Amino acid sequence: MITSRNNALIKNIKKLQQKKYRLRESRFLIEGVHLIEEALAADVGIDMLVKSEEAPLLPFDIGEHRVVEVEASVFTTLSETQTPQGWLAVCKMPTDTPMIEGDVLLLDGLSDPGNVGTIIRTAEAAGMAGIYVSEDTVDLYNDKVIRATQGALFHIPVVAGNLKTIVFSLQEKGIPVYSTAAHAECSYQDVQPRQAYALLLGNEAQGLSSELANITDQTVSIPIFGKTESLNVAVAAGVLMYGWLNQREEQR
Amino acid sequence: MITSRNNALIKNIKKLQQKKYRLRESRFLIEGVHLIEEALAADVGIDMLVKSEEAPLLPFDIGEHRVVEVEASVFTTLSETQTPQGWLAVCKMPTDTPMIEGDVLLLDGLSDPGNVGTIIRTAEAAGMAGIYVSEDTVDLYNDKVIRATQGALFHIPVVAGNLKTIVFSLQEKGIPVYSTAAHAECSYQDVQPRQAYALLLGNEAQGLSSELANITDQTVSIPIFGKTESLNVAVAAGVLMYGWLNQREEQR
Repeated sequence: MITSRNNALIKNIKKLQQKKYRLRESRFLIEGVHLIEEALAADVGIDMLVKSEEAPLLPFDIGEHRVVEVEASVFTTLSETQTPQGWLAVCKMPTDTPMIEGDVLLLDGLSDPGNVGTIIRTAEAAGMAGIYVSEDTVDLYNDKVIRATQGALFHIPVVAGNLKTIVFSLQEKGIPVYSTAAHAECSYQDVQPRQAYALLLGNEAQGLSSELANITDQTVSIPIFGKTESLNVAVAAGVLMYGWLNQREEQR
Repeated sequence: MITSRNNALIKNIKKLQQKKYRLRESRFLIEGVHLIEEALAADVGIDMLVKSEEAPLLPFDIGEHRVVEVEASVFTTLSETQTPQGWLAVCKMPTDTPMIEGDVLLLDGLSDPGNVGTIIRTAEAAGMAGIYVSEDTVDLYNDKVIRATQGALFHIPVVAGNLKTIVFSLQEKGIPVYSTAAHAECSYQDVQPRQAYALLLGNEAQGLSSELANITDQTVSIPIFGKTESLNVAVAAGVLMYGWLNQREEQR
């Protein structure tokens, strides 16, 4: 059992709380029983599990994975949650860029990790094929993003890239790219994507960059019946994805 | 200008960061230019505004409201945001219980302030008539709730009470009460509330208390097409409220 927070392995694991070390090592941390179960189910590469001396037994099989036991106080220094469950894992980032075919989301510069994680969770639930995020979107391997995805990050391809290039390449394939704005003339109910579509969402405060807004095929709004100016972006994403799913079902 | 954080007024304002003092004084804090503008527009009672010596001019009229200027370091002790704008206000809680007639939300023991605030924002935007929350739901005047509502809290009645009593009283008026569950047999698309309805949402982890689940008229689910087990409760609320709005419009 590791009893010192100055142990070299512990120090290296702790560094993965920072984006720069995550990128350097191509590793990230997940914490808690549910996320570890999801990662195992999705065949995410796991370097090692770390358990606190006080951690409960896991209710599933972890195969041959290495388990490092640490003193409770050492676990606390590694934990980023308010009520640690005593389990975390060091995971490998995916190295291959997956093919994405079907409905896609594009996230332009979203900064709130809870929003991004919730959107990934909703997109996976709604059966979207994948998500593209701009380089300035909050880091996907931020612990708050991963927690908010509830593990969905392991089940849907999420790829960072230049959104302008991606929009053009989607349009070349005949896939319409929709964006949202508070006062667009067209309501989302009037758009009925029958085939694959792309939905582009902008930053919580600034909205979409004008460079991207100018090249989308159609801007739609969600009608507001109160005095609120706009919806939270994660809620808007859910309303649009499920709204369009339903329209498609009705057409069948 | 107040220069000491030990000033009695400053200490009393700071106490309002705690629920127990908010209840005792029937006062709460709001922070930032946008929320102050919304509170003024909604005629929320404002005791006083507090401005940091470094705060910018406000871009709207504050009428006869008292403004207390404080040193920047004093403002910092009062602020609960990461990037303070230098303005906050001490507001009065509403004293009268408003009549709510129309579509309503019921929140049973929700614990995440961001979720509750986002749900209030979405409900106001979707034109719901009001929201009932159980006594064990996170305090509505928590700063994170207020911030997530983006001011919608000032534009829609939100009333705390015994949800069981409220469900019975709604049902007596002929208003159907729907709840949600991950694996309900009935999809929300198959329910088409033509008249006023009530939507009951449960705690993020535990779901609805069985006492309430047993007395609702119908449990509905939102279909999941991926491996995710459920949607975030604020996203689910948005999908349901807007989904039912659209169905109602189509029937007209």
